[in-house]
Amino acid sequence: MSHRIVLLHGPNLNLLGTREPGIYGRETLAQIDELVQREGRELGAEVRTLQSNHEGALVDAIHQAREWAQGVVINPGALTHYSIALRDAISAVALPAVEVHLSNVHAREEFRHRSVIAPVCVGQIAGFGAFSYVLGLRGLIHYLQKKQAVQ
Amino acid sequence: MSHRIVLLHGPNLNLLGTREPGIYGRETLAQIDELVQREGRELGAEVRTLQSNHEGALVDAIHQAREWAQGVVINPGALTHYSIALRDAISAVALPAVEVHLSNVHAREEFRHRSVIAPVCVGQIAGFGAFSYVLGLRGLIHYLQKKQAVQ
Amino acid sequence: MSHRIVLLHGPNLNLLGTREPGIYGRETLAQIDELVQREGRELGAEVRTLQSNHEGALVDAIHQAREWAQGVVINPGALTHYSIALRDAISAVALPAVEVHLSNVHAREEFRHRSVIAPVCVGQIAGFGAFSYVLGLRGLIHYLQKKQAVQ
Amino acid sequence: MSHRIVLLHGPNLNLLGTREPGIYGRETLAQIDELVQREGRELGAEVRTLQSNHEGALVDAIHQAREWAQGVVINPGALTHYSIALRDAISAVALPAVEVHLSNVHAREEFRHRSVIAPVCVGQIAGFGAFSYVLGLRGLIHYLQKKQAVQ
Amino acid sequence: MSHRIVLLHGPNLNLLGTREPGIYGRETLAQIDELVQREGRELGAEVRTLQSNHEGALVDAIHQAREWAQGVVINPGALTHYSIALRDAISAVALPAVEVHLSNVHAREEFRHRSVIAPVCVGQIAGFGAFSYVLGLRGLIHYLQKKQAVQ
Amino acid sequence: MSHRIVLLHGPNLNLLGTREPGIYGRETLAQIDELVQREGRELGAEVRTLQSNHEGALVDAIHQAREWAQGVVINPGALTHYSIALRDAISAVALPAVEVHLSNVHAREEFRHRSVIAPVCVGQIAGFGAFSYVLGLRGLIHYLQKKQAVQ
Amino acid sequence: MSHRIVLLHGPNLNLLGTREPGIYGRETLAQIDELVQREGRELGAEVRTLQSNHEGALVDAIHQAREWAQGVVINPGALTHYSIALRDAISAVALPAVEVHLSNVHAREEFRHRSVIAPVCVGQIAGFGAFSYVLGLRGLIHYLQKKQAVQ
Amino acid sequence: MSHRIVLLHGPNLNLLGTREPGIYGRETLAQIDELVQREGRELGAEVRTLQSNHEGALVDAIHQAREWAQGVVINPGALTHYSIALRDAISAVALPAVEVHLSNVHAREEFRHRSVIAPVCVGQIAGFGAFSYVLGLRGLIHYLQKKQAVQ
Amino acid sequence: MSHRIVLLHGPNLNLLGTREPGIYGRETLAQIDELVQREGRELGAEVRTLQSNHEGALVDAIHQAREWAQGVVINPGALTHYSIALRDAISAVALPAVEVHLSNVHAREEFRHRSVIAPVCVGQIAGFGAFSYVLGLRGLIHYLQKKQAVQ
Amino acid sequence: MSHRIVLLHGPNLNLLGTREPGIYGRETLAQIDELVQREGRELGAEVRTLQSNHEGALVDAIHQAREWAQGVVINPGALTHYSIALRDAISAVALPAVEVHLSNVHAREEFRHRSVIAPVCVGQIAGFGAFSYVLGLRGLIHYLQKKQAVQ
Amino acid sequence: MSHRIVLLHGPNLNLLGTREPGIYGRETLAQIDELVQREGRELGAEVRTLQSNHEGALVDAIHQAREWAQGVVINPGALTHYSIALRDAISAVALPAVEVHLSNVHAREEFRHRSVIAPVCVGQIAGFGAFSYVLGLRGLIHYLQKKQAVQ
Amino acid sequence: MSHRIVLLHGPNLNLLGTREPGIYGRETLAQIDELVQREGRELGAEVRTLQSNHEGALVDAIHQAREWAQGVVINPGALTHYSIALRDAISAVALPAVEVHLSNVHAREEFRHRSVIAPVCVGQIAGFGAFSYVLGLRGLIHYLQKKQAVQ
Repeated sequence: MSHRIVLLHGPNLNLLGTREPGIYGRETLAQIDELVQREGRELGAEVRTLQSNHEGALVDAIHQAREWAQGVVINPGALTHYSIALRDAISAVALPAVEVHLSNVHAREEFRHRSVIAPVCVGQIAGFGAFSYVLGLRGLIHYLQKKQAVQ
Repeated sequence: MSHRIVLLHGPNLNLLGTREPGIYGRETLAQIDELVQREGRELGAEVRTLQSNHEGALVDAIHQAREWAQGVVINPGALTHYSIALRDAISAVALPAVEVHLSNVHAREEFRHRSVIAPVCVGQIAGFGAFSYVLGLRGLIHYLQKKQAVQ
Repeated sequence: MSHRIVLLHGPNLNLLGTREPGIYGRETLAQIDELVQREGRELGAEVRTLQSNHEGALVDAIHQAREWAQGVVINPGALTHYSIALRDAISAVALPAVEVHLSNVHAREEFRHRSVIAPVCVGQIAGFGAFSYVLGLRGLIHYLQKKQAVQ
Repeated sequence: MSHRIVLLHGPNLNLLGTREPGIYGRETLAQIDELVQREGRELGAEVRTLQSNHEGALVDAIHQAREWAQGVVINPGALTHYSIALRDAISAVALPAVEVHLSNVHAREEFRHRSVIAPVCVGQIAGFGAFSYVLGLRGLIHYLQKKQAVQ
Repeated sequence: MSHRIVLLHGPNLNLLGTREPGIYGRETLAQIDELVQREGRELGAEVRTLQSNHEGALVDAIHQAREWAQGVVINPGALTHYSIALRDAISAVALPAVEVHLSNVHAREEFRHRSVIAPVCVGQIAGFGAFSYVLGLRGLIHYLQKKQAVQ
Repeated sequence: MSHRIVLLHGPNLNLLGTREPGIYGRETLAQIDELVQREGRELGAEVRTLQSNHEGALVDAIHQAREWAQGVVINPGALTHYSIALRDAISAVALPAVEVHLSNVHAREEFRHRSVIAPVCVGQIAGFGAFSYVLGLRGLIHYLQKKQAVQ
Repeated sequence: MSHRIVLLHGPNLNLLGTREPGIYGRETLAQIDELVQREGRELGAEVRTLQSNHEGALVDAIHQAREWAQGVVINPGALTHYSIALRDAISAVALPAVEVHLSNVHAREEFRHRSVIAPVCVGQIAGFGAFSYVLGLRGLIHYLQKKQAVQ
Repeated sequence: MSHRIVLLHGPNLNLLGTREPGIYGRETLAQIDELVQREGRELGAEVRTLQSNHEGALVDAIHQAREWAQGVVINPGALTHYSIALRDAISAVALPAVEVHLSNVHAREEFRHRSVIAPVCVGQIAGFGAFSYVLGLRGLIHYLQKKQAVQ
Repeated sequence: MSHRIVLLHGPNLNLLGTREPGIYGRETLAQIDELVQREGRELGAEVRTLQSNHEGALVDAIHQAREWAQGVVINPGALTHYSIALRDAISAVALPAVEVHLSNVHAREEFRHRSVIAPVCVGQIAGFGAFSYVLGLRGLIHYLQKKQAVQ
Repeated sequence: MSHRIVLLHGPNLNLLGTREPGIYGRETLAQIDELVQREGRELGAEVRTLQSNHEGALVDAIHQAREWAQGVVINPGALTHYSIALRDAISAVALPAVEVHLSNVHAREEFRHRSVIAPVCVGQIAGFGAFSYVLGLRGLIHYLQKKQAVQ
Repeated sequence: MSHRIVLLHGPNLNLLGTREPGIYGRETLAQIDELVQREGRELGAEVRTLQSNHEGALVDAIHQAREWAQGVVINPGALTHYSIALRDAISAVALPAVEVHLSNVHAREEFRHRSVIAPVCVGQIAGFGAFSYVLGLRGLIHYLQKKQAVQ
Repeated sequence: MSHRIVLLHGPNLNLLGTREPGIYGRETLAQIDELVQREGRELGAEVRTLQSNHEGALVDAIHQAREWAQGVVINPGALTHYSIALRDAISAVALPAVEVHLSNVHAREEFRHRSVIAPVCVGQIAGFGAFSYVLGLRGLIHYLQKKQAVQ
């Protein structure tokens, strides 16, 4: 396949489908991963996925992504709002990353409006439920193709 | 066609293609409109477009959208950051709206991080150049289909 | 008639009666205009009305009010919170103005507590639905009568 | 009479007529009470009045109002800006209340712009001198009538 | 036993008894665990305990608590002040939680006054040394009993 | 009895049982006082109680507590958030005090998160309904016993 | 005597001599009153004194001072920092007032640096223990004499 | 003529000469336009002028300036403080602009100290009445000449 | 004489008597120096004076004061609000200092309410014109006498 | 000559021509002084100049300007942002002053947007390099002529 | 050897040499460890090193350092700015620690200016690239020697 | 010698050895100067030193350093926190500078955490007593050597 992408999920996203469905929808994380991987295959991209409740494990995964992947789709969960370590990891590996959120974080509590990670990403997508991931994947692939065309 | 969507562009977006291409890309607004309309046709959606440098004209357009459209894709440009009138217009007509930005506003000047409009939208997409509009359109259509399915 | 008063409505108020009736009530703008004009006639005042979604058109209307009116009742809608242009227009024409709101803005989102316009008005009335306008009209006429008595 | 209303005055309002007439006007509190009671009688409402410089006495009066009154008109004076106890008293007794001010508090010192009490009231009226009370009474009675009509 | 409760301790609490005894007292974590478990037995509750210096491990433990426990007593240690991940974990599993602190965090440095976790808890107890845990356990059991009575 | 404790209730708490039961529960203040006194007797403590809507009366009561009591349990109600006078009274008499709240103040409006009184207390307990008082009493007695043991 | 002065003490000052002597000194309030009255007699001034823990009682006293006194020396205690009612009372009676503090409030907690009352006083004196009162009295009398000289 | 310059006036400036002459002087806008055009002719510059109370009309005018002008002198009036749309228009057309104000905005209300437009201008001139425009014109022409010299 | 005191005046105070007499009074600095020295002699104190517009010269003077003086009376003028160097000088020499101001700084612009110097002084006196110095001298001497009595 | 003007330069401006020419231009201070003096002669004004890196020396110079000059042109350099002493000096001598800056301070670091000096000046000019001084001189002379005409 | 020191590196520092060399330099972490260890040997100190991307692992390492080391040199990376857990770990083990940074964090983004860890360290060193570690080691050893000398 | 370095000390540092030894240590400034000069000689660097309590004198010294020195070590004392003039001097002369502090300023009062000077320095060292200077010198020399190697 022509694209290799890592899909990362931050803390608590393993609970998807059971947790506050009014906010986060009814799909499980496995279903989302499958959805994104299927979409990926159609677009000629292989997608490897990881979920962790450990900030350090996500940082490790971003470091390892350098060896294999061309880009990262990440839903940092709550870490969005304070993990400068995650931010620095993304800017350190110099891989294009897209930040996605299930809910429209801009319409929730004040502290969820601020992302310390978005400033080092290609872009941010929020509010479309599981479909945010699909949009994020498409956005990333489009970005990679444009970059290839330039080179 | 099954979907009717209004695409709105705020102040200064008529200059696209000529204005600071390093930030906003080289495509003109006409090209973007065409891109979105073509994408719309493929997805079974008619897209009508309007650009204005007048806040009031955009508010008027949102009001008129009620008569015809099922949803709005909007790049409010600079109005993103202070036009509560635009925000109130969107929540008044009760049409689902998606906010899109060409550049990653979260990585630019501090005052561009805050959107007074995003809290009343389905979601926000930023940072993918003209492709942000395509993602926004897809996100909106996906939202409309899910809503129809429920009803 | 002894009093000549201009009644101005800001952005989105043309949607009244259809827009979020839980907050703004079920009366249309036409009904409110009629209510205020009828009340005006009883109190010996002619009331001319204008609604616009354009900040500039409201500024123009305030300028023109100088030629004919003795006072202004204004519901600036969302412009309440940021239109310094509207504020400057009111203090420039030196006509007494009363700011009215349908809803109790002090009980809504934080950003709706601040009015940049109230500091140049005679007073502010908020929270009584369409009846806020009636109270505003009475307040303004009372103010004009007291001023006449002094002269 | 069909309406029973309590009119409360906060700290320093007993000095009215003598205190800074440039800001607060020349009428005494007794004259204002009489004005409101006369207006009340015309509108079919009995109005009982109390002034106190003690926050606790005003809280007590609001509690007692539950036994007799259907609504409260209150000028909390300086307590407007910090007495959360008064605010809690009003929301505890669940009587509709209208906050009134003689002067346009929004045009005075910054710290007078904020009301901790208005968020639990029907509405707020400011800037019409003694006539603010008349408008407040009319606003409250209008509110009570609309509520009765609904029931 | 009728109640099953998980007791969690955040970073650095493994050092208890040795660390700044002026602030945290002389009891070790093992002694506190024993104290709480003994108290639990008297009140008919089984208490399982875990300490970790890893935010992710605490999030995992909260997730696992869903399978067995009816409630959580947690001293998040320093994570109290910034771990939105822990907060989201608690609200995701929808188990009642009680936040406890050995010291009176409200009387220490400014940054220790703010808890990002307390808003999703039943309540917060601080300042009683090891006895805060006993109070927390009692508070939680009381909460569980009241809830059972209602059902 | 070996312990003598004063239990103080601030403004509006006399309305308990009738006021917003969704937040404050259905027990009256008299029932709470009885509950705490009974619990006190079991623990060998005499508990005297006072409620007042007057900040000054609560300050007076704290001063008088010096003559008889060994500690104070206080629910300052709305005064929690601004009464520096109450704070100074507690630190002036140098009696250990425990601040209690029925509701979880940390999960309510922003302005209810800040306590000006907690910094001079032994600790704070919030969110357990009437049982917060019981926990507060136990916490205080435990504190007194530990202090006696040291002396 | 040629001058008539009211000396007011706010909440907790009745405890002087017993309360945190490290900060407030060892003199009782009676001793301070006597000190100021003796100093007053030497300077040809009669000094009447009042202490209250009730904000309302202090407001009442300031109102009554209008009938008899030519000026006010006041230590508002904790009310210094939030009692806008006290501030309004002083500016309403239009008597010259001097604010005094035993301790150097500018060297204590941040929240004690701000006085809402000083802006309506002749001046403020802080940090000289009981002698602050003597300096305040002298300052006030000097002010009164200068004003008389002008008239 | 060697220079072509657009002179723009924002909201309310059409009222000049009648509006608060204490702050803005007695000259009308026509007189100022004439003054600047005469000064322009002497310096070899043609000056075209426009005033509008509509933000959108000013944005349009800046866009059109690209076709004809070499620079812009603008008094944005109240829009100075919030119109990011105007700011973006100026930086989009990449014409040198000079911001002028009749009054010394730095000596007026706090909110008039901040300009969102000045950061994208060559410079800012404020406080010299109608003469601010003359200085602005001279500053702009000097800037254009220096730039020509370099090329 | 038993006391040796240095009196320091900060920037612009050399202009006293000519500068804004409405705020600062009509006395010249020489007259104030003489007034304080005469008062000093009566109280058994020698007073040496210095005025400088140079922050560094005032720091030097404070250092030199260590060799001769027992205390400092200082009106730091505008330096009050930002000169941490002056503050550090005072706390470094460990001489008791009293901060005085002619005007009531607490009633002037916001930025004049904050003193960076008062926290390292015995106390602060403001608002009594030239008499502030007399009160400051008396306050300092009283402080020195009390300290001597203790030793 | 009919006008006598003092031109003052604050800290670091002696380095002009060598210091960061990208921001400040290539002219030396001597060249700027000469430029302004020549321009002055043409306009019938004598210009005396001073540069100092010492705040106190600038305050002294402003004081001395009273004896000879009719106005001041000042580039306070870095002192613009914190020297309240300089501000007080200008308002004390009651000479009209014009603040000038080489660079557009409003487009640089946030802390350079705030001037503590501009509020007491006639006006502020920024962004035109050495030509800012010429514009400042012209603005000041125009101001003096208008004032003379009035007298 | 006479000193035993632990050298800790926080998240992302394993990438050194590859990550943004413009900011962090070209040396790898292994080279830095070797550099510090060699320097240590010359100064008679054994240095053990650890890098982790996990906050919890660093907390664990600090706890273990108690058993063997006399001091800690730590570059907390991004954790510098929010990990109160790390801060508490350092103050809990009561080992002297020195915080080091490769880049001058004070000259980078605002959020990198604040260290929550520095307040519990002996000192902080930033901006010297890999040599910051050498300086940190020397600073720590000097501190240990001085402490030994005192004992 | 191969390196020429200027060592500058700001206000109050002339008092070292006598001033608050608990914070600043017992060494005098002369001893520190000697220590740094001896260290310098060992490293092949000549060090010239200056202390001044005058901001302007330090600015002058930095300007003069251009003629002779290759770098600056500076302890700006209290000026660290507000002297933008000093900051501009350093960036104007374009010499590498290292900011040093005896005490750990990050662990002292809030206002000592902010340095306006560090952003234009190579780095900052704080908390090692007199040894901070030695570390600063070493850091600067290392910086100079690396720069030479590159050229």
